[in-house]
Amino acid sequence: MIVEMKKGATPEDVDVVVQRAKSLGMSVQLNLGTDKTVVAILGSSTGQLPIDIFALLPGVDNVARIMKPYKLASREFKPEDSLVSINGIEVGGKRFVVMAGPCAVESEEQLMKAVAAVKESGACVVRGGAFKPRTSPFSFQGLEKAGLELLALARERFGIPVITEVVDPHDVTQISKYADILQVGARNMQNFALLTEIGKSKRPVVLKRGLSSTITEWLTAADYLLAEGNNQVILCERGIRTFEDSIRFSLDISSIPVIKKVSHLPIIVDPSHAAGHYSLVPAMAKAAVAAGADGLLIEVHPNPKEALVDGLQSLTPSDFARLMEELRPIAKSVGRYI
Amino acid sequence: MIVEMKKGATPEDVDVVVQRAKSLGMSVQLNLGTDKTVVAILGSSTGQLPIDIFALLPGVDNVARIMKPYKLASREFKPEDSLVSINGIEVGGKRFVVMAGPCAVESEEQLMKAVAAVKESGACVVRGGAFKPRTSPFSFQGLEKAGLELLALARERFGIPVITEVVDPHDVTQISKYADILQVGARNMQNFALLTEIGKSKRPVVLKRGLSSTITEWLTAADYLLAEGNNQVILCERGIRTFEDSIRFSLDISSIPVIKKVSHLPIIVDPSHAAGHYSLVPAMAKAAVAAGADGLLIEVHPNPKEALVDGLQSLTPSDFARLMEELRPIAKSVGRYI
Amino acid sequence: MIVEMKKGATPEDVDVVVQRAKSLGMSVQLNLGTDKTVVAILGSSTGQLPIDIFALLPGVDNVARIMKPYKLASREFKPEDSLVSINGIEVGGKRFVVMAGPCAVESEEQLMKAVAAVKESGACVVRGGAFKPRTSPFSFQGLEKAGLELLALARERFGIPVITEVVDPHDVTQISKYADILQVGARNMQNFALLTEIGKSKRPVVLKRGLSSTITEWLTAADYLLAEGNNQVILCERGIRTFEDSIRFSLDISSIPVIKKVSHLPIIVDPSHAAGHYSLVPAMAKAAVAAGADGLLIEVHPNPKEALVDGLQSLTPSDFARLMEELRPIAKSVGRYI
Amino acid sequence: MIVEMKKGATPEDVDVVVQRAKSLGMSVQLNLGTDKTVVAILGSSTGQLPIDIFALLPGVDNVARIMKPYKLASREFKPEDSLVSINGIEVGGKRFVVMAGPCAVESEEQLMKAVAAVKESGACVVRGGAFKPRTSPFSFQGLEKAGLELLALARERFGIPVITEVVDPHDVTQISKYADILQVGARNMQNFALLTEIGKSKRPVVLKRGLSSTITEWLTAADYLLAEGNNQVILCERGIRTFEDSIRFSLDISSIPVIKKVSHLPIIVDPSHAAGHYSLVPAMAKAAVAAGADGLLIEVHPNPKEALVDGLQSLTPSDFARLMEELRPIAKSVGRYI
Repeated sequence: MIVEMKKGATPEDVDVVVQRAKSLGMSVQLNLGTDKTVVAILGSSTGQLPIDIFALLPGVDNVARIMKPYKLASREFKPEDSLVSINGIEVGGKRFVVMAGPCAVESEEQLMKAVAAVKESGACVVRGGAFKPRTSPFSFQGLEKAGLELLALARERFGIPVITEVVDPHDVTQISKYADILQVGARNMQNFALLTEIGKSKRPVVLKRGLSSTITEWLTAADYLLAEGNNQVILCERGIRTFEDSIRFSLDISSIPVIKKVSHLPIIVDPSHAAGHYSLVPAMAKAAVAAGADGLLIEVHPNPKEALVDGLQSLTPSDFARLMEELRPIAKSVGRYI
Repeated sequence: MIVEMKKGATPEDVDVVVQRAKSLGMSVQLNLGTDKTVVAILGSSTGQLPIDIFALLPGVDNVARIMKPYKLASREFKPEDSLVSINGIEVGGKRFVVMAGPCAVESEEQLMKAVAAVKESGACVVRGGAFKPRTSPFSFQGLEKAGLELLALARERFGIPVITEVVDPHDVTQISKYADILQVGARNMQNFALLTEIGKSKRPVVLKRGLSSTITEWLTAADYLLAEGNNQVILCERGIRTFEDSIRFSLDISSIPVIKKVSHLPIIVDPSHAAGHYSLVPAMAKAAVAAGADGLLIEVHPNPKEALVDGLQSLTPSDFARLMEELRPIAKSVGRYI
Repeated sequence: MIVEMKKGATPEDVDVVVQRAKSLGMSVQLNLGTDKTVVAILGSSTGQLPIDIFALLPGVDNVARIMKPYKLASREFKPEDSLVSINGIEVGGKRFVVMAGPCAVESEEQLMKAVAAVKESGACVVRGGAFKPRTSPFSFQGLEKAGLELLALARERFGIPVITEVVDPHDVTQISKYADILQVGARNMQNFALLTEIGKSKRPVVLKRGLSSTITEWLTAADYLLAEGNNQVILCERGIRTFEDSIRFSLDISSIPVIKKVSHLPIIVDPSHAAGHYSLVPAMAKAAVAAGADGLLIEVHPNPKEALVDGLQSLTPSDFARLMEELRPIAKSVGRYI
Repeated sequence: MIVEMKKGATPEDVDVVVQRAKSLGMSVQLNLGTDKTVVAILGSSTGQLPIDIFALLPGVDNVARIMKPYKLASREFKPEDSLVSINGIEVGGKRFVVMAGPCAVESEEQLMKAVAAVKESGACVVRGGAFKPRTSPFSFQGLEKAGLELLALARERFGIPVITEVVDPHDVTQISKYADILQVGARNMQNFALLTEIGKSKRPVVLKRGLSSTITEWLTAADYLLAEGNNQVILCERGIRTFEDSIRFSLDISSIPVIKKVSHLPIIVDPSHAAGHYSLVPAMAKAAVAAGADGLLIEVHPNPKEALVDGLQSLTPSDFARLMEELRPIAKSVGRYI
């Protein structure tokens, strides 16, 4: 932590900063510059100290962090890539993992058709929402328990792992019986009560990026999962909120190389929620593969025109099959296979 | 809802749109323009229809809403201003309501000092966090149950209502015993499980704006509370996430006149979390009064230098007393009193 | 400037950083922390050094600035407030200065009606665009030379100073003959060729904030004017681009106290372009006065329904007169007069 | 254009809207809904009409556009892809065009080394800045005329076309003598005086996206060039300003499929300015190829550590050579060659 003193700060002001740092077990180095004095506060836990502790002391002009606030998710903490294993499928390795399926489970027929189609095209995890967090209370909220049972049925019938979203911390145990991977939605990225429960469950989890969360905040939220001993964490970039209005959210493609640089966790991409329109999904999916993502989360519906939720961003089974064929050579170009 | 057909759309394409709309009980008007055909779909519930239903039909170019997705929070639904009554104090009327207190309850001494000071200066509700949703799992998370009991003690000793945050839907009943107003934090604005429980509790609630939520999304979240029959809803502007980095969040001062125009709900402003620095709080508080807000939510700490949370943005009791004096003539200028 | 070395950086790596800094005339302090070494580079001109000079050296992890890149606009450079004098009217002092008039000069009748009205209500500068930078080439581009002549006529007839926008660096000399204050529009805030010419002219200038410019970039742009010896610089906050779509631009009310803290330059506010709708202008104008702005720039049109440009955000003369009456007590509350 | 009347608007109010539209040569269709009346105003030029003309009429609640404000850049206006030819190299066809070179021309040695290297690796246009628009007036501003002459020398010696930036409308003619492609920088995207001059020059031009410009505004700016008869327009995505602070600008990868959908103009990508750090450039370059861009604009410097401008984001010649090899199979995967 770097504490910059004001011009005109007294030696006593500087000493107060130094003593405060020492009382917290930190070591200190002083820089008596020509214009202003700068105090560097050093120690392995300065990333977790609130800056306010120093910013309010007399004579202090500004305080800047050097250490990031996240710790367990950082590559400094764990230099080698983490692999998350789902029934033998490894996320974060050479295999590029495609998870696909409908936004919401609507009926047995709809779900089985979707699963059959995405499995045939090469998806190795099926997605489907049973509890849907909807913007408006008047929208369809999901089949809930009945949806979970249909997912379990699909898992059994097709021998494919299932991912579904959890929205209430008290549902974690129940949903873990039906699903192989728990999903934390973008709007719940900082629902810390939920993160703590999922952390305790030790279940593989996909943590979607909050729609206005910085990468630093995202990794700090991952620390909530990791701090409970759950190492099975997959990050999911799904677009951030910007001023651009031609798409729903701006897919932050640069988050892929940034995450690879600063964290050991695998990262997948959801192009469907970012785009908001099926016609834009293929280009964004290809970009994600080329940029080094470890997988995709794509919405596929047997009949998007009749979908109860997000039909406009869903691919048809035939569009999805074509996209998978187009992704394979790109994956190969970057040293992966699908 | 306005469905714009592509150039070259056939009469059959148009007919499919028309029949779909009629099957949903909507009425339809056709505009056969020189360049393109436009179909207007009319009816009182088009705001709740997903646009995807039409956007995916053949020959359709674009679909735009006319009706807003929120309903119960709209001024069209309820033209007169709503008043929320807290132990006889009305929010939304002539009285400008100042809620103040520490970010987190830290100890009996700290809380009692803060409450004594803010009450003396004219605050009529005391704030204090017992459950703190923190960005990092390694930060202080609040005193929890013990914090609630201290709040109840302060309420009794000083005869002042209390507001505190709820972060888990299953805590609503318990916290309602200790607090007069429940607070939904910015990061939980779209935690629909939480909103539904608070809606059922019928308790007065302050709904903070999500840090990247549009006003439309904010009012649609308020609909979750209102739909459960809870009419005691107060909105709270607390700054939005933008690119500007000199403050923590950009206080969206225009949300005040916009909310007054489109909604009947009262709106208060939290300048402390927006500013992130005590020196900026007074200017932003004054702006809020002048712009027509119904109240303020301000952080005050007896000794900000020692605060465990957000000390940098907290006012001292004497700064708060001075600010209250400065706010009174501005309130009077806009026809209010403090 | 703080250079943070990677874990595992060698003493040789550190030495290269130190030598590079010394070769640039900077002084250096080393912090040999437990986790990593940090090099503090000190000197009065580090704010102007590109960080890349150090960031690319071997073993360097990250480089952070302490000094701001702007210099002449900073309060550290000039602690006392600057006053800008326009024909005896001081901007930045006790008088709150209201500049008002139509977005574009359309005709003699329109301009004279507008000037008569705004002067009567207490505006002390008249605004009017002759060269209009329009988003689309098919929109009305202003009366250009004829517009300037009408402005000069209004100035003479009503004895009121005139502000108008310059869009081409080669027009500065000509426009200076007709106008008392030159305006740099938001889209030209970083048109450095234009800033340099206006700097040379020594004319009072209003520098609008770029619609996605940070306060730091805004003040660094002001340095272009100040570096040419033009001290007559007034900043104008006019809203920034955010995701919120209920208004045109989000008025950044916090820029007022931030500018007052870090710069000596006066700051006025344009609520009309931010709001984009006349009904929101009064609330935002009042907020600006209360927050400590030094003036306002408001669009007034004798007949907004017939305006060629931005009629929707223009006040009528009677709305403007009412607003001016409402602003006076607020100005008084913050120690100013109109 | 869709004019939505307020609940309770009178038949007279509606008639005023209808007469106004007819007086402008538009045709009108009325929708007398159960809740509110909606007036559809149709005609091929409604995209250029300001909405204020109707929004201010009595009884009007809201006005929404259907037509986009841009016209000449739209795919509706010209359905087939545009190709821009630079000395026989076509941008927008099967060949994926890489433009590379230093941010700023610094010396003959630096430029010639850079050009030799990028040509050898397969770049077919060389970039180099002679006039540098710098954020601070105290930064290096480019070699200006001498820089242009060095670019012309490189062009002659290596037989490779040159792209360079223009910042002043009065320099267009001079710079056109030295450069094959003119570049409009992001901060000048809405410098309409500059766009008009470049439009008149009929020179091939790269129009960078403004750092907070929507795609609609970008294409409307392109209309300024096209309206002067210059059809040689190449768009360049270079990242937009968002809240994310791990990179300089967020590369909007979705702009590529969106532009391909709504416009006929070719689009290239500048990953260097978006990333701000060389280590992130390869991932973003690969993503751009996969997403369907027509080319890249990449910064390469023979010795980034000594670069006067933007060294941190420049690739070394060997990094660039490796990247080009990595891009080829991805280009092939999407049906292109480099």
